[in-house]
Amino acid sequence: MDRNQFRDAAHSAIDDIVKYFDTVPERRVLPAVDPGYLRPLIPENPPDEPEDWAQIQEDVDTKIKPGLTHWQSPNFMAYYPASVTYPSILGEMYSATFTAPAFNWLCSPACTEMETIVMDWVAKALALPECFLSTSETHGGGVIQNSASDAIATIIVAARERRVREVLLAEGLKEGTPEYEDRKFDVQGKLVAIASDQTHSSGAKGALIAGTRFRSVTARLKDNMEMTGPRLREVLEKCDKDGLTPYHLTMTMGTTNSCSVDRFAELKAVLQEKPHWQRIWVHIDAAYAGASLVADEWQYIAKDFAEGVDSFNMNMHNVLYVRNRLDLTNALDITPTYLRNPYSDMGTVIDYRNWSISLGRRFRALKIWFVMRSYGLNGMKAHIRKTIGFGDIFADLVRSRSDLFEIVTKPGFALTVFRLRNPQSSFNGANGTSERAVQDKGADTLTKKVYELINSRGEIFITSTVIDGVYVIRVVSANPLAEEKNVRNAFDIVLRTTEEVLQQK
Amino acid sequence: MDRNQFRDAAHSAIDDIVKYFDTVPERRVLPAVDPGYLRPLIPENPPDEPEDWAQIQEDVDTKIKPGLTHWQSPNFMAYYPASVTYPSILGEMYSATFTAPAFNWLCSPACTEMETIVMDWVAKALALPECFLSTSETHGGGVIQNSASDAIATIIVAARERRVREVLLAEGLKEGTPEYEDRKFDVQGKLVAIASDQTHSSGAKGALIAGTRFRSVTARLKDNMEMTGPRLREVLEKCDKDGLTPYHLTMTMGTTNSCSVDRFAELKAVLQEKPHWQRIWVHIDAAYAGASLVADEWQYIAKDFAEGVDSFNMNMHNVLYVRNRLDLTNALDITPTYLRNPYSDMGTVIDYRNWSISLGRRFRALKIWFVMRSYGLNGMKAHIRKTIGFGDIFADLVRSRSDLFEIVTKPGFALTVFRLRNPQSSFNGANGTSERAVQDKGADTLTKKVYELINSRGEIFITSTVIDGVYVIRVVSANPLAEEKNVRNAFDIVLRTTEEVLQQK
Repeated sequence: MDRNQFRDAAHSAIDDIVKYFDTVPERRVLPAVDPGYLRPLIPENPPDEPEDWAQIQEDVDTKIKPGLTHWQSPNFMAYYPASVTYPSILGEMYSATFTAPAFNWLCSPACTEMETIVMDWVAKALALPECFLSTSETHGGGVIQNSASDAIATIIVAARERRVREVLLAEGLKEGTPEYEDRKFDVQGKLVAIASDQTHSSGAKGALIAGTRFRSVTARLKDNMEMTGPRLREVLEKCDKDGLTPYHLTMTMGTTNSCSVDRFAELKAVLQEKPHWQRIWVHIDAAYAGASLVADEWQYIAKDFAEGVDSFNMNMHNVLYVRNRLDLTNALDITPTYLRNPYSDMGTVIDYRNWSISLGRRFRALKIWFVMRSYGLNGMKAHIRKTIGFGDIFADLVRSRSDLFEIVTKPGFALTVFRLRNPQSSFNGANGTSERAVQDKGADTLTKKVYELINSRGEIFITSTVIDGVYVIRVVSANPLAEEKNVRNAFDIVLRTTEEVLQQK
Repeated sequence: MDRNQFRDAAHSAIDDIVKYFDTVPERRVLPAVDPGYLRPLIPENPPDEPEDWAQIQEDVDTKIKPGLTHWQSPNFMAYYPASVTYPSILGEMYSATFTAPAFNWLCSPACTEMETIVMDWVAKALALPECFLSTSETHGGGVIQNSASDAIATIIVAARERRVREVLLAEGLKEGTPEYEDRKFDVQGKLVAIASDQTHSSGAKGALIAGTRFRSVTARLKDNMEMTGPRLREVLEKCDKDGLTPYHLTMTMGTTNSCSVDRFAELKAVLQEKPHWQRIWVHIDAAYAGASLVADEWQYIAKDFAEGVDSFNMNMHNVLYVRNRLDLTNALDITPTYLRNPYSDMGTVIDYRNWSISLGRRFRALKIWFVMRSYGLNGMKAHIRKTIGFGDIFADLVRSRSDLFEIVTKPGFALTVFRLRNPQSSFNGANGTSERAVQDKGADTLTKKVYELINSRGEIFITSTVIDGVYVIRVVSANPLAEEKNVRNAFDIVLRTTEEVLQQK
């Protein structure tokens, strides 16, 4: 493909992309395809000779788009939002053009330095405590990760290495000796990563990747699924009793199931109770709800991250912050000869490869820079307020039919968690904001029926989950293209389908 | 940014991108900036109000481009190539547009199914053995990873889990019991991952991430830096003696230092010598040189991967293949309620989240599809042959001045590794293809001087390394924009700088 072919192809692709965003609200959000739909449509072997872009673009239209789940649709209300914006597409174009796996400063100074700068921009936008800025006295800083799961796995490995090294050096062992190595694996085998059972699965997966044990703290509906101090203390004490060493704790701002916020102050107070608990690495997973911190009215939450917190991550561009970058580099720096260069050796520059599992990196800082400049902080605040407002509208609609529905956890951050009431049940309250949903097989069955029927029709896409034994529906209203009518339409669909299911009985 | 602003911005960006590729050969490949150059050029805080694209694009031109190391320049001859092509930029545009973290099939069937299909395309293009196809009897298949480092870390974790489970089940322990957990960490603490000391650093880093020991096999210049059977046997026997359990072996096709190819058949024969060695997970890291397998004349190498090999990775789009996908999913599948869905539960679909560390995924399969169709297999073969041919030209130029230079390892796959001869040395041979470069501090010093002078001038960018105690320069000629004149120019620069350094003495 030469420059002229590319220019033509790109112009045509841009028209197609604009058309996609314009028409995506009208598309079925969940595709009507069966597993294996694509294989018969694609040749068994790659072509020997070049094909024209026109043919490729037509295939995108006829073969790919019909098989997409449209995360950008305003009718996508499942999982969590994974939003794309026009400026971020421009960012991807330039990032690809400049492709430079900037694993050290020299491999592309602009990539590294822009990342440090925009990480500081994001930290300030979120009102994160000073300690997470690259200029902080604690040698903090931010790094873009491939995904939230990568961020969590990276942090758990860093926490493991920090704890093992502390123990071994305190025992007077010397790094690099056989005794150090043997003892390292003794100590590691006793380490336990801890998180609430509402923590995203990446917590348990991170502990698994790091090769350490994992224990979860049970959250309960009567606590709104928040991790509490007493429940954490129970788990820590059990570890002590079993001769195990808790070394990492994930606290969550906005759990995946219900967007609950763990009780940070209370949990940190528990960690102060014993000296060896004070050495636990504390991570805040704000993957989904962290974005709300751009709006002033939520920034009070970040005040709890100033003390006793080692790291923080959030999904918007998969940013990860640490209080002390040496915790990362001490764990992950393996510098062979071919990666040595005078700048890195002098320690005057950041080599982001030592802040993550990946060696190579994309120039995603450019994308963050484009997006923040194109919207401005005020634009970002407006987006957060709009989508959280839609969540409030949806929750109010659910409450307005408390004869049919029960809100199961406190709605928030554009997420509403609810279930159907079981007309046969004697447990039914009437206020529609029950803080005490109780297990009820009848309600589970009805809720599941409604959920499956809605998704099978593909007009909106929602998720279900099980919270403290209760089967619930989650509806997220945080899509950039969403308008109030989409939220109202979603509730109409829920209502209609509920009435349909109740009549079938 | 609305649709019209985006259309204008994107057209302008495309013109800029075309201009970038047209002019990159004339730019200084290494930027003339000092650490910290960018910070004073960028406002300390993000803007409150939106800024225009014109301003942003101008800043890319004046602030970013001058700080880039131009990996796409034909004068970039360092590390390894990280090439971008026009069709892959189109792929990034569409991938961003459709943003769908397709962690399971339902999250976007087209993303998952296209990945399976193009992974099969790539496997066929490389003539990989049948076992790595998604349709194979061994339940093999390919997956796109974030980077080669991620691929290696993922495989090492999978190997660890497979080995531990084998041992524990053979001991009659039951998964989920406390005894199983305790014993798991005993066994894990004895595990050793093995690779040659020429293996990319991601091997040692992967073992570190997985929380297991690592031992390297020493490669020697007299073996052309290839890992040999006898050297591997020594390390395995030492592990046995120390009561340790080797569980993972990385063999490399194209080491980072010198593009050496480990002696696969010989190494596999050693693993057959003892039953517990037969259980070692064998991985082929072909990160750089694997791309050459698209050209028929190199495909004989892949025949060695048919038996006794568990997995294979290569940099072109960071693909990873396994012989049995259950080895990955058994290790990495942690499915919480909110990720459950009927298709996954039935096992009729692939959920790629269980094939990698990341949960979310980009739609990079689209990019591979665009690239393979835009060039065709014949275009890809032609690219490989052209760049390997340039390597041969460069090596011949070095040989033509055997009075000044000594080729240190067998040139290949577009990489030439050489050093300056030390005029004071008595070791000097005269054939210019010495298979016996010996340690020589004088030659090291001269070579290092030439290397540093060349990079400080930024006309070409090359890498140095140390091989078996010998300081060498590596020149890679695998850039898509490279022409023969660039290779000849690079040699002229090397020659001129060498003469300059020798005169200084």
